[in-house]
Amino acid sequence: MIKKGKGQELYEKAKTLIPGGTMLLSKRPEMHLPELWPSYYSAAKGITVTDLDGREYLDMYIMGIGPNTLGYGHPSVDAAVNQVISKGNMSTFNCPEEVQLAEKLVELHSWGEMVRFARSGGEANAIAIRIARAASGRDKVAICGYHGWHDWYMSANIADDSRLDGHLLPGLQPAGVPRALMGSTIPFSYNNLDEITEIIKSTPDLGVIKMEVTRNEDPKPGYLEGIRKLCNEHGIVLIFDECTSGFRETFGGIHLKYGVNPDMCMFGKALGNGYAITAVLGKKEIMEAAQKTFISSTFWTERIGPAADLAALEVMEQTKSWDFITTQGIKIRNGWRKLGEENNLVVNISGIPALSTYNLETPQWLEYKTFITQEMLKKGYLAGSSVYTCIKHTDKVIDDYLEQLEPIFKTIGSYYKNERDISELLEGPKSHGGFKRLN
Amino acid sequence: MIKKGKGQELYEKAKTLIPGGTMLLSKRPEMHLPELWPSYYSAAKGITVTDLDGREYLDMYIMGIGPNTLGYGHPSVDAAVNQVISKGNMSTFNCPEEVQLAEKLVELHSWGEMVRFARSGGEANAIAIRIARAASGRDKVAICGYHGWHDWYMSANIADDSRLDGHLLPGLQPAGVPRALMGSTIPFSYNNLDEITEIIKSTPDLGVIKMEVTRNEDPKPGYLEGIRKLCNEHGIVLIFDECTSGFRETFGGIHLKYGVNPDMCMFGKALGNGYAITAVLGKKEIMEAAQKTFISSTFWTERIGPAADLAALEVMEQTKSWDFITTQGIKIRNGWRKLGEENNLVVNISGIPALSTYNLETPQWLEYKTFITQEMLKKGYLAGSSVYTCIKHTDKVIDDYLEQLEPIFKTIGSYYKNERDISELLEGPKSHGGFKRLN
Repeated sequence: MIKKGKGQELYEKAKTLIPGGTMLLSKRPEMHLPELWPSYYSAAKGITVTDLDGREYLDMYIMGIGPNTLGYGHPSVDAAVNQVISKGNMSTFNCPEEVQLAEKLVELHSWGEMVRFARSGGEANAIAIRIARAASGRDKVAICGYHGWHDWYMSANIADDSRLDGHLLPGLQPAGVPRALMGSTIPFSYNNLDEITEIIKSTPDLGVIKMEVTRNEDPKPGYLEGIRKLCNEHGIVLIFDECTSGFRETFGGIHLKYGVNPDMCMFGKALGNGYAITAVLGKKEIMEAAQKTFISSTFWTERIGPAADLAALEVMEQTKSWDFITTQGIKIRNGWRKLGEENNLVVNISGIPALSTYNLETPQWLEYKTFITQEMLKKGYLAGSSVYTCIKHTDKVIDDYLEQLEPIFKTIGSYYKNERDISELLEGPKSHGGFKRLN
Repeated sequence: MIKKGKGQELYEKAKTLIPGGTMLLSKRPEMHLPELWPSYYSAAKGITVTDLDGREYLDMYIMGIGPNTLGYGHPSVDAAVNQVISKGNMSTFNCPEEVQLAEKLVELHSWGEMVRFARSGGEANAIAIRIARAASGRDKVAICGYHGWHDWYMSANIADDSRLDGHLLPGLQPAGVPRALMGSTIPFSYNNLDEITEIIKSTPDLGVIKMEVTRNEDPKPGYLEGIRKLCNEHGIVLIFDECTSGFRETFGGIHLKYGVNPDMCMFGKALGNGYAITAVLGKKEIMEAAQKTFISSTFWTERIGPAADLAALEVMEQTKSWDFITTQGIKIRNGWRKLGEENNLVVNISGIPALSTYNLETPQWLEYKTFITQEMLKKGYLAGSSVYTCIKHTDKVIDDYLEQLEPIFKTIGSYYKNERDISELLEGPKSHGGFKRLN
């Protein structure tokens, strides 16, 4: 049995003080192991996370939801941040690191010329949309994938809250998004060139296409090239949202792998190895439109973000982290597949290797997922249906993880085969599959 | 003559890499001393800022544009941040500090019950608007004051880019803000109860009033109470934007001083003494509307922000910083007035004492301001037409500053009296008075 501790208690209090309990839906305990998830940490180092009761867990899960490809608390990155603190992280002048970082991002992307920084992915998305609309002079945006919480994006769900289902999370209500924005953002499906061609044809005031380069599947041959061509023909600003995909498969945007360049792209998550920094990179002619509008914020001038990022990029370059985390992701996927085969379970895998996710093709998947999280937690692991790999996920770590997972898959296989309800093994409610109101 | 150095050189490069040169309009060198402003810092401690050439300046100016009421690099706050770095600033779990901080902000404001955190003031504003619209079920917003760069706010300028002139900065173009938002945000003038009454009467779908409690002038007797009453009568969510005013005159929002409570308020700038953290505080019934919509971001879960804020609040409480910075602000204002009188110059003062701003009632004010900045820089001061006070602005510091300012006012007085053009004394172009495209 999982023993509740200080974390579960604190979360009960948090729900009375913070609507929704946390700042990030994916960090809600209910998304993982309702009532039993330790929820809060006292320390995190490498892949070891310590809860409020001093219990340690190995993170074979989402690694902070993606920022820490170098592991928690990488010494070189932390040293750069310590240096910033000793020298001062804020002043009436600007920090030189932001210029160095802009130069570095431009250097890594031959097509990119200018950069703006922010401190969260949603902001970077909103900045990119503002600039792209200003540059194109047209307001309508077509989108594919997940692009944050801002009005411009959520407006796709006005009048019908299922429009973003394939892109974001099922059933997100757009309450509080002005109804005047209805129709301003048009979702399109990935890998369907006909659909976006049709949207462009029927939307003369379409100025921007924003998409994730890849999320759950690879681009079909010619798909990204086709989008690029359409944008060129119609004077549409093409934006790749690389907040999640950046620096996981190449040293920069994943678009470098496919050889198709956008007009703008955003980076987030992995950029600063856990320190808040996000970036909008673009062609000069597009980015200069920022000067026709007002985009400005005090905390975008703090120094930790760009300093951490410069240090993180150096470590990435030295370790070729993107190669390593991709290789390790593939090993984990192979492990899942093997465990599935051994137990007669169909394993579906999605995401790029460094952001690997699986599910078991069964009606009780949410119960099984909850069971996996519960049993792995008892064994000292944070685990669920995803692993976001980092450079601390060595072969030994992966082997141990798969070894611990093996008997759990065996139990699931037996329950599945015998059509027994695994709920009887759950010590708490099953995990949420998406956005839900908390009580 | 001011000798140019590495800072000016780096800024030339920055303008080729970053549209507009910086992340914050108010930190543009052109807003202070075009071509000659040192622009970048290597270190900042207390009120001493060191530029890239190792030259030191005393900050009798904007102190990072407001975040550092405890001075740059306060040891207790920095110690808390160092602790976070050694323990880990990010993990798959949440940080307990965010719950403690929520509790603290609620404790300081009897009317407030729930909190959401972000990392920039613009974000906090956008979150508050989303929640307030969701809670009221109405989209239209009336605003007074400055509330960031987001679409919801900038939309007030669509069709006529002077509507925000008294609220923000003259002539801001709303390029890239969707035209569908035209009319969704309605500006109103401060201290004019008739005007907002009229707006409410003619706008049945007005759901939100967002305003700064005070900015350049004190509220007239009954004004804030009148707004509160109107909001109660019409079911309008009243939001006080305390991003700038918070923790400068009371231990919390400045509205505590006036005894009028909003339904929500935001804090920013001074909250974390230079570390990025902003907050939205509100009544439970309003804040719970956040659960009907999607507001979520990875970097809102980083740990430095709330940890720095908790430490900063402790120092504020110990030092009663809000009292001290108000007292010191009043001394500085008195000094300006005295210098004005001595030199037959009319000094106009605005802002709360801790954010004091002055101008000289002359047609050449922008030239005079540039001259002041130029001459003070030569004497080792960052100075202009404002002082944002901090606890390091002691009597001695203020006396020295006023002593250095004295001969400069004398020169200005003489030029003004003799109708001579002070431009002949400027070593570079005069400063920008507002938003302007850079080349």
